[in-house]
Amino acid sequence: MPISEHPQLDRDGRLRHLLSIEGLPREVLVRILDAAEPFTDTGSPDSRKLPLLRGKSVFNLFFENSTRTRTTFEIAAKRLSADVINLNVAASSTNKGETLLDTVDNLCAMHADMLVVRHAASGAPHLIAQHLSATRRDQVHVINAGDGRHAHPTQGLLDLYTIRHYKRDLSRLCVAIVGDVLHSRVARSQIHALNILGVGELRVIAPKTLLPAEVERMGVRVFHDMRAGLAGVDVIMMLRLQNERMAGALLPSAQEYFKFFGLTQDKLELARPDAIVLHPGPMNRGVEIDSAVADGPHAVILPQVTFGIAVRMAVMSLLAAAGA
Amino acid sequence: MPISEHPQLDRDGRLRHLLSIEGLPREVLVRILDAAEPFTDTGSPDSRKLPLLRGKSVFNLFFENSTRTRTTFEIAAKRLSADVINLNVAASSTNKGETLLDTVDNLCAMHADMLVVRHAASGAPHLIAQHLSATRRDQVHVINAGDGRHAHPTQGLLDLYTIRHYKRDLSRLCVAIVGDVLHSRVARSQIHALNILGVGELRVIAPKTLLPAEVERMGVRVFHDMRAGLAGVDVIMMLRLQNERMAGALLPSAQEYFKFFGLTQDKLELARPDAIVLHPGPMNRGVEIDSAVADGPHAVILPQVTFGIAVRMAVMSLLAAAGA
Amino acid sequence: MPISEHPQLDRDGRLRHLLSIEGLPREVLVRILDAAEPFTDTGSPDSRKLPLLRGKSVFNLFFENSTRTRTTFEIAAKRLSADVINLNVAASSTNKGETLLDTVDNLCAMHADMLVVRHAASGAPHLIAQHLSATRRDQVHVINAGDGRHAHPTQGLLDLYTIRHYKRDLSRLCVAIVGDVLHSRVARSQIHALNILGVGELRVIAPKTLLPAEVERMGVRVFHDMRAGLAGVDVIMMLRLQNERMAGALLPSAQEYFKFFGLTQDKLELARPDAIVLHPGPMNRGVEIDSAVADGPHAVILPQVTFGIAVRMAVMSLLAAAGA
Repeated sequence: MPISEHPQLDRDGRLRHLLSIEGLPREVLVRILDAAEPFTDTGSPDSRKLPLLRGKSVFNLFFENSTRTRTTFEIAAKRLSADVINLNVAASSTNKGETLLDTVDNLCAMHADMLVVRHAASGAPHLIAQHLSATRRDQVHVINAGDGRHAHPTQGLLDLYTIRHYKRDLSRLCVAIVGDVLHSRVARSQIHALNILGVGELRVIAPKTLLPAEVERMGVRVFHDMRAGLAGVDVIMMLRLQNERMAGALLPSAQEYFKFFGLTQDKLELARPDAIVLHPGPMNRGVEIDSAVADGPHAVILPQVTFGIAVRMAVMSLLAAAGA
Repeated sequence: MPISEHPQLDRDGRLRHLLSIEGLPREVLVRILDAAEPFTDTGSPDSRKLPLLRGKSVFNLFFENSTRTRTTFEIAAKRLSADVINLNVAASSTNKGETLLDTVDNLCAMHADMLVVRHAASGAPHLIAQHLSATRRDQVHVINAGDGRHAHPTQGLLDLYTIRHYKRDLSRLCVAIVGDVLHSRVARSQIHALNILGVGELRVIAPKTLLPAEVERMGVRVFHDMRAGLAGVDVIMMLRLQNERMAGALLPSAQEYFKFFGLTQDKLELARPDAIVLHPGPMNRGVEIDSAVADGPHAVILPQVTFGIAVRMAVMSLLAAAGA
Repeated sequence: MPISEHPQLDRDGRLRHLLSIEGLPREVLVRILDAAEPFTDTGSPDSRKLPLLRGKSVFNLFFENSTRTRTTFEIAAKRLSADVINLNVAASSTNKGETLLDTVDNLCAMHADMLVVRHAASGAPHLIAQHLSATRRDQVHVINAGDGRHAHPTQGLLDLYTIRHYKRDLSRLCVAIVGDVLHSRVARSQIHALNILGVGELRVIAPKTLLPAEVERMGVRVFHDMRAGLAGVDVIMMLRLQNERMAGALLPSAQEYFKFFGLTQDKLELARPDAIVLHPGPMNRGVEIDSAVADGPHAVILPQVTFGIAVRMAVMSLLAAAGA
C-alpha cells in the first residue's frame, strides 16, 4: 500500500486522521507526545487560550453518550479557539432515517474541519475517513473518540504520555494491564501504543472469561493470578469494569471480582516501590480499585486527565497543520 | 397598513424580523441573497470568523427538537462571533408552567439580541414578534426556524440562493416541487419565494391526498403524474416524506410511494439535461429519492447546506445592522 | 475560627467561593453589589464582551436540571469571555457510578477555574468547597446555583441589588416575603441577605403549613393573613409555588391558594403606593400572582433578570480576581 493511501497519514507522513494507534509509525506517536508537552503549561490564562484553531469548526459527533469524553475534546478545542458544536446524534436526524454518511456529508457541507466521532459500532470512524477520501475532502479530519470494542486512541496516547512523563525510558519498563481486556477498547489502544513504543515487558492480568481469544498474539504475557502478574511491575494500568458485565454470566459478583482482581494496597506492594497506577476513569471504587490506592501516592489518575487535554490539543493542532 | 407596522420590516424598509417569505418585498429577498454571497467564501479560516455579531447574544429557542437546523444557526452565529445559547425548551421552564411570552420576556431581560425560534405551533414566531413590538423592544430580532406547517423561511431562502447560483435568470425557469406539499412548511416557503422572485413556471407534483385544498390559488400548476410533471423542468425540488405519514391512511406504503413519486434516474431524464435536484434533507433514500440521483451529478443537495449557512449569516447580519 | 478557614473567604477577606449568603460579612455583600453596577451598562455590544475571564474555564455542573438558571450563568460567563462547558450530570458519569467528588477532581484536572453547581442535596456545594480546600486547590472556585432547600445565593443577591436599585436606603424599608417559605432556598437566601444589610422590617406571609418551624428565629415577623402582612410594605417578594406541592396534602388547590396568598391588584393596594413587586420566576400566573400585577407598573420582575446577569458577572469577576 503506497503511503498516500495510509488511512491515517497523508502523502508526507503527516497525521490526517486519528483512527487507531494500531498502524501508526513510532515517530508519529512520538511527534504527538512531544507536541503535547507545551500544552501542559497552563500556568497563566493566556497559555490556555491559543489561536491555533481560530476560525475552525470542530464537531463532537457522538452517536453514543459520553459527557466525560465529549467534555475533554470540547475543552481542548475551545482552548485552541475553535468553534465547537456538540451533536448528540442519538437524539437527532439519524432517528429521521438519515444515514451516518449523509450526516457526515452534511457536516462537511457546513465546513466542518474536524469530526470527533464516538460510535457504538467498531470501525465507524474508519468508514467516515474512507468516505472522506473517496469524495476527496482531504481538509476534513476524523478523530476517533471511541468505537465499539475497537479503539480509543486518545486514551491510549494519554496513557503513553503519562507513563513517559513519570518513567521516561519505556524500553526498560514492565507494564501490567489489569481487568476486562475482552470488552475494552482502551486496552486495545494501550497494547498497541506500548508495543509500538517498545515497552520492556507487557502483561495482561484478567480472568479467562475477560480475555480475548489468542490474546498472546498481541505481544503480551498473560496472568490469571493478579499477585503473580503484579510482581515487580513499574506501571499498573487498571481497566474499568462495565457494570453491565457484572449482571451477566461472565462474572460472579462485584465483591468476588474485587477480591481477585481489585487493586488493593497489599497487592500494590507486590509491584516496584515506585510503581505508578493508571485508570481511564470513571472509577468503580471498591470494584476494580480500592479507594486507598485510587487516592494514594502511587496513583497518577488525575494527571492522566490533565495530560489527556494536552494530548487532544496536540492531536488537533497536528491535524490542523496537516490540513493547512 | 403603514410600512412602520409591517411585521417584518422597520420604518426604513430594513429587515427587523424574518418570520416568513410571504409578505416580503422582492428587493428584500434579493438583498438577503446578495448579502449571502461573500459568506460563501470560506477559503481561509479568517474568512470564517467575522466580528459582525461580536458582543451580541443569539438564543436558539427550540420548542421542537431539530439538531440539524439548530446546528446551522449555531454555526452561522458563531462564525459571526456571536455568543450562542442553545435552549431546548421542551425540557425547560415551559414544563414549569411558564408561558411562551414570559420565556421571551426573560430572554429579552437577559439582553438577547436575536431569538431563533422553532415551534410546533404555526404562528409562534409571529406572536413573539408582535409581543416585542407591543412592548417596544425593537432591538430584539426574531428568526423563524420552522413553525408548524406554516413557514421555514431560511430554507426557502437557501433554495432560492441555490437556484440563482446555478441558473441565474429565474424568469425563464420551470421549477417543480415534488412530494408532500400538504404538510410541508418548506414547500410553502419555497412557493412564496419563487413567486415573489418571478419564476417562469411553478409546478407541484403530488398525490391528491398530499396537496392542500385549492393549491392552484398559490400560483402553481398541479400534476398528479410525476412523469408528466417533470417534463422539461429546469429545477426539481424534492420534499421530505415524514415517516409518520406513511403509517397513516394517507399513503399506501413507502415502496408504493417511491414507485409513483420517488425521483429515479429514469424519471429525472424527463427533465432538461441540465436540470438540478434539490432536497431539504434529511433524505429518505429509496422513499422520496433514489441514491443514484441523490449522489449523482444533477444533485445540488450538499451545496444547499453550504449556502444555507451563508444565507443564515446574511439574515443575521442584516438584522444586526437594522438593530444598530 | 481563623479567617483563613472561612468557608467562603480567603485569608485577605476576598470571596473564594459563593456558597450561601449566610455567613458573608456585610462589606462583601456590598462589594458584590457595587461590582455589579458597571455590568448593567449594556448599551453597546463592546460593553457586553469583556475580557475579564478570558482563558478561564467555567463549568456549569448541574445535577438538577434548570435551563433558566444555567442560561443566566452561561451568559454571564460568556460576556466575560470565559470558555463555558455545560455538564448535565444527571445524564453523565454519575450514572456510571462515579462519585460527586471524583467528578469534581476530574474537572479540576481539566483546569476548571469555576464550578457553578446545582444539586438537589443541600450542602453539596459546601462539600465540594471543603474538598477543594482539603486537597489544596485554592485556584478553583465554587458558585452555588441552588442546593436542595438550603440556598440560592445569586438569587438573593440579585433581589438585594434590585431593592437597592429602586429603594436605596434599606434601613428604612419594610419588606414582605410571601408564599412557600418552607421549601424555598430562595427565601432563605433573601432572609439572610436582608438581615445582613439591615433592612428596617422583614415580614413573611404564608400559611402555617408552608413555614419552617421557629421561623421567627430568623429575624422575621410572621403573618398568616396576607392583607395584614402587606399593610404599608415597601417591597413585596413573591415566592414561586412548586406545582408538586399543590398535588400534596399541604395545600387545598391552586384556586384556594390564589384566593388567600395570590398577589392581586386589590391586595397590592394595601402596600405603600410606591411599593415594588419581585418574583424569582418562572411565574405561575393565577396561582401566586395575578397577571395584572405581574405586568403592572409595580412589578420589577424583568429588571430582576437583567440585574441577575450583572450580579453573576460581578461574582465571577471577584472570584477570578481572588484566584489570580
